[in-house]
Amino acid sequence: MMVATDGNAKTTAAAAGNKKTGKKGSLNDGLRVAFATGAVMGFAVVGLGLTGATLCYIVLSQNIAGGFTAAKTMQCLAGFGFGASSIALFARVAGGIYTKAADVGADLVGKVEAGIDEDDPHNPAVIADNVGDNVGDVAGMGADLFESYVGSLIAAATLAVSQSKIEGSAIAGQAEEAVALAFLLPAIGIGCSIVGFFFVSTKEEGKGWDVSLGALMFALEKGMYVAGALFVVLAYFGTVSVLGLSINIWYCVVLGLVAGIIIGKFTEYFTSFDFGPVISIKDRGMTGPATVVIQGLGVGMISCVPPTVVLGVAIVGTATLGGSYGVAISAVGMLSTLGITLATDAYGPVADNAGGLAEMAFLGKEVRAITDSLDALGNTTAATGKGFAIGSAVLTALSLLSAFKDSIQVDGLHRTFDVGEPIVLAGVLFGAMLPYLFAALTMISVGKAAAEIITEVREQFKSHKNAYGFTLGQCIRLYTEMYEKHGEGNWKAPVEKEVMPDSDKCVLISTRSSVREMIAPGTYAVLAPLIGGFLIGPRFLMGLLAGAIASGCMLAIMMANAGGAWDNSKKLCEKLGLKKSANPADRELQKACVVGDTVGDPFKDTSGPALNILIKLMSMVSLTVAPLLKSYGSAPDNQGDFEHWEYGLWPLGIFVFMTFILSSKQVNILTWDDPLAEMVSDKKPLL
Amino acid sequence: MMVATDGNAKTTAAAAGNKKTGKKGSLNDGLRVAFATGAVMGFAVVGLGLTGATLCYIVLSQNIAGGFTAAKTMQCLAGFGFGASSIALFARVAGGIYTKAADVGADLVGKVEAGIDEDDPHNPAVIADNVGDNVGDVAGMGADLFESYVGSLIAAATLAVSQSKIEGSAIAGQAEEAVALAFLLPAIGIGCSIVGFFFVSTKEEGKGWDVSLGALMFALEKGMYVAGALFVVLAYFGTVSVLGLSINIWYCVVLGLVAGIIIGKFTEYFTSFDFGPVISIKDRGMTGPATVVIQGLGVGMISCVPPTVVLGVAIVGTATLGGSYGVAISAVGMLSTLGITLATDAYGPVADNAGGLAEMAFLGKEVRAITDSLDALGNTTAATGKGFAIGSAVLTALSLLSAFKDSIQVDGLHRTFDVGEPIVLAGVLFGAMLPYLFAALTMISVGKAAAEIITEVREQFKSHKNAYGFTLGQCIRLYTEMYEKHGEGNWKAPVEKEVMPDSDKCVLISTRSSVREMIAPGTYAVLAPLIGGFLIGPRFLMGLLAGAIASGCMLAIMMANAGGAWDNSKKLCEKLGLKKSANPADRELQKACVVGDTVGDPFKDTSGPALNILIKLMSMVSLTVAPLLKSYGSAPDNQGDFEHWEYGLWPLGIFVFMTFILSSKQVNILTWDDPLAEMVSDKKPLL
Repeated sequence: MMVATDGNAKTTAAAAGNKKTGKKGSLNDGLRVAFATGAVMGFAVVGLGLTGATLCYIVLSQNIAGGFTAAKTMQCLAGFGFGASSIALFARVAGGIYTKAADVGADLVGKVEAGIDEDDPHNPAVIADNVGDNVGDVAGMGADLFESYVGSLIAAATLAVSQSKIEGSAIAGQAEEAVALAFLLPAIGIGCSIVGFFFVSTKEEGKGWDVSLGALMFALEKGMYVAGALFVVLAYFGTVSVLGLSINIWYCVVLGLVAGIIIGKFTEYFTSFDFGPVISIKDRGMTGPATVVIQGLGVGMISCVPPTVVLGVAIVGTATLGGSYGVAISAVGMLSTLGITLATDAYGPVADNAGGLAEMAFLGKEVRAITDSLDALGNTTAATGKGFAIGSAVLTALSLLSAFKDSIQVDGLHRTFDVGEPIVLAGVLFGAMLPYLFAALTMISVGKAAAEIITEVREQFKSHKNAYGFTLGQCIRLYTEMYEKHGEGNWKAPVEKEVMPDSDKCVLISTRSSVREMIAPGTYAVLAPLIGGFLIGPRFLMGLLAGAIASGCMLAIMMANAGGAWDNSKKLCEKLGLKKSANPADRELQKACVVGDTVGDPFKDTSGPALNILIKLMSMVSLTVAPLLKSYGSAPDNQGDFEHWEYGLWPLGIFVFMTFILSSKQVNILTWDDPLAEMVSDKKPLL
Repeated sequence: MMVATDGNAKTTAAAAGNKKTGKKGSLNDGLRVAFATGAVMGFAVVGLGLTGATLCYIVLSQNIAGGFTAAKTMQCLAGFGFGASSIALFARVAGGIYTKAADVGADLVGKVEAGIDEDDPHNPAVIADNVGDNVGDVAGMGADLFESYVGSLIAAATLAVSQSKIEGSAIAGQAEEAVALAFLLPAIGIGCSIVGFFFVSTKEEGKGWDVSLGALMFALEKGMYVAGALFVVLAYFGTVSVLGLSINIWYCVVLGLVAGIIIGKFTEYFTSFDFGPVISIKDRGMTGPATVVIQGLGVGMISCVPPTVVLGVAIVGTATLGGSYGVAISAVGMLSTLGITLATDAYGPVADNAGGLAEMAFLGKEVRAITDSLDALGNTTAATGKGFAIGSAVLTALSLLSAFKDSIQVDGLHRTFDVGEPIVLAGVLFGAMLPYLFAALTMISVGKAAAEIITEVREQFKSHKNAYGFTLGQCIRLYTEMYEKHGEGNWKAPVEKEVMPDSDKCVLISTRSSVREMIAPGTYAVLAPLIGGFLIGPRFLMGLLAGAIASGCMLAIMMANAGGAWDNSKKLCEKLGLKKSANPADRELQKACVVGDTVGDPFKDTSGPALNILIKLMSMVSLTVAPLLKSYGSAPDNQGDFEHWEYGLWPLGIFVFMTFILSSKQVNILTWDDPLAEMVSDKKPLL
């Protein structure tokens, strides 16, 4: 997946600029190519997800005759889901740390220390930075939604089996049909997405940042709307006519799809610079960076309200219509047209990199204008994509939670997870804390990972030479001098003085450090439900999951939207030309917004998205170990709290051991150290 | 209460400095006076709280013969609690906005625009700023803990009645004794606090910021430890010997008390500049304000872990020992020695203001050194106090939640609030969102309220004159000139050129604007549980409360500790003398920490503490309206969701109407406008 997108990012740049030689590059061409790149990933995700889950199901259910019950099949399917979650954890969390570490590293050492441009090809970290955009935003987003896609499908199938046994439920006695629907809907969705794909095009011209975003946005969204409308019609036939399920189930599907779109739209309102929230952040720049940060956090917090209300209505509505299966199938509905939604989202980072590549390849201003237009649009789609990712993650996690609850039911024992019980409440409280821990760990990691890159870049500046013995540092100084004389971009070094950095090494280092930094959050995410479930019991675990989902949802929305809003408030300053304004107050304002943007970077690209993974992963882990938890409790008045606490000592032991190792001076991961500060402070002759 | 503390703040300054005329002021004198001031408020709170609740109870329970059942008495007692909550809302939320608005206003217009010192007596907003410290930190904190104190007592008494009816519970059949304990414990606590009060003293000398904080801290804490130890012993006799309750109940009380102390200690770790977290924030200053903000948020988030674990252990432990009554009585235990705890906390702002007054009264350097030492200690006690306030708020809110649950039970109907039910989950999700909304509203309010103060100050600079027709602005310019010539503080204006500002008007304006700005968060906090409870039903409301408590707890801890840590990282820079360092990198570092501090100000003084109120207030509102919610649901399989949704239209209508009014252009409260920015940007001749 990464290879495909990385390769395609280059094609995009080529497509937008290559035509300079022959015919002029147009915005539409760029849009089409970038969108096609996104679509590669979108369709890869849905294709692999559906095929994988279907294959698993077929193989497992063939064994039914050989003793595999439907419940057991679902249980094994949860294993497939857990696999998807693990990959997602890796891609999203390590990817998130990678992308920001490379970004911060490249920025600090390039812009701040050496005084060169962000995308200057002489910066050894710039390739790592570009790779990072793909790793974090494309592969990370893909893996995240892959997990949601597979997770919602599994939750719906699991609930189909358990809920169909309940009399009076919307799918009573229709287990097979309900399971089939969970596979049928995504299949229909893929077909509709393919149709929608051909509707994306624009007649707009590339005018840099001044482009009419609304029109461009519509060009991209046409595809989504066509696919969505088609899906609604076909889903009706599939659900009601073919499978003979209640029409209420179809309502659930539609509700899910609509909720996803509305959440995306609200996200757009809070993060696009056409609307009040982002403008208000920019305005606060007048009173300094602190007020920008406060306002951004305020906007991020308020932006939790609409998605929560939408999700709440969707949950209550679908639950009334179809019980917990209704909630799960609405998540499937929301994600069914993921092929095209993801294509739209993945388009953003592709367009962003196209701009970077255009600069690195010394392409002309008109090409840059086209890529800038594409980039502006990309920022918005990336933000709406994040909103959609969170919404679907929450709905998926809630469905998995319901599936978990059904999976630990034992005949003759009525388990109660009453939220008024102190033990459940303690679970909710504990669960609500986990997203904060997870977000903090990932956020603090970025600085540490960035420090390693800076060390490497400095080393290269000093000792990386070309065949003529000219160092990279000397080459950069020469460029800076000559650019001052001749104007930026109007000079090229002779071959004996041109030094290209060793970018591979930076990529290697950021990969290594980001994986190292994800050990702590990754392990904790897996261990938390195990400790809670085995040490205390299923009631505590249910509370924990509910608390984590609710608190994680809010924190994720807040972080993603605050980050997006800060980013676009900075973009707004650029659009207004404040950076080069004659008024010093304007320049201060722009600087204040840059601070906001820097705070927002780990918010929106590292910690925020990582929370999606956290809540789904913990639910998936719980669902996977559900059979082991069945032995807790034996009667309604004995819910089995602490019944087998000795099992819980294992995960607890691993947790303690891990923490001990990670916080030791040698490993130096869970410490308060700041390698970055030390680095910056010894500002010795850098070049 | 406000009058007492305000007056005493002046006594403190006098005590620390007044003795200059006669004998030399010592650190111990200052400490004693400041502590006594705090104690006035501490004992006022506990005295009023206990007396009020007891009187209510006596009056109500005397009517038992006349038809008042025990349950009904408790119900009416909830009304008293609701009263306490309303006052707390007012004092904490409006107070929080007030204190920061005055602070920001005074700072911006004074330091930034006119270039005068923060505490310069010529700044018309400086008195409002000082009053604000008392309003927010003393009265606000007092009202907050008053609410907790009364709330935990009411919850324990309510649960005593309902839980005593359950067979097998720790207090089965001991309703009267259990109710009596809820009143007895605070009474014992007051006695112990009075004893502890006389143990506070120190032999340390005032050495400014270099004072050994540990030793000073111990001087203050001696009182708390003595009171605590004494309380534990007496509580044993009261619980077991006098009332004949199970020893398990006594364990619950002790667990609560210990939990409170541990939470305070952890808070100290995360916010005192002697430890890693704050130092790590200061280190990040090297890479600019953005990394300071990120690290501060990270520290705040991680600081959620220990208190949550402590609270979780306390809840699970006390629930195992004594059921939900155990949890409630542990909250009573935690708060029993509030008299002395609050004296310790309230001491901080008193010491802070003493320093301000010392400067305003042109007192010598040695006095300032003493007040600085006291202030440094005050910052730490204020932070631990905040931790304690949050911990007790959460425990109180959880007890109220349990009390609410018991209050809506109807014979023959087994209500289930199963967290696996979609409707409860939707409630949890919705509840988790409310603290974010509340925090955002209060945070954004600060800027708007500050703008009004700035307008007034500017007006005074321009047109406020003394009898000789000399304007305030002219006077300030004269001082600035003369200070440059003669050195700061070494010159005094002749009487015809001395202009004192009209401070009262600034106080008036900040009062008015802060009350205006609290309308939205205050009303929403009351309406949210009403809408959720009446429109949807008690199950949704239970979920809502649980979600709000969990999410609010985390957000409150995060905000309070991040704010405290930023504040002390700035103080650490001052202590290290970075502000006037010869190295420009050091000065940049200090500036970066100032940005963090400014972000932290509304965090720790406005939004964070306001969340304590939110969670208790919503629980209290729910408990108060519980009898009305009893009519929802009629059988185990009909839990009454949406049964009387028409009742819910009333609060919903009020909500919609209010929002409409508040977001209109004329009222301009719920808008994205930033009056502050406009003000700063038209930098016309200010003086």
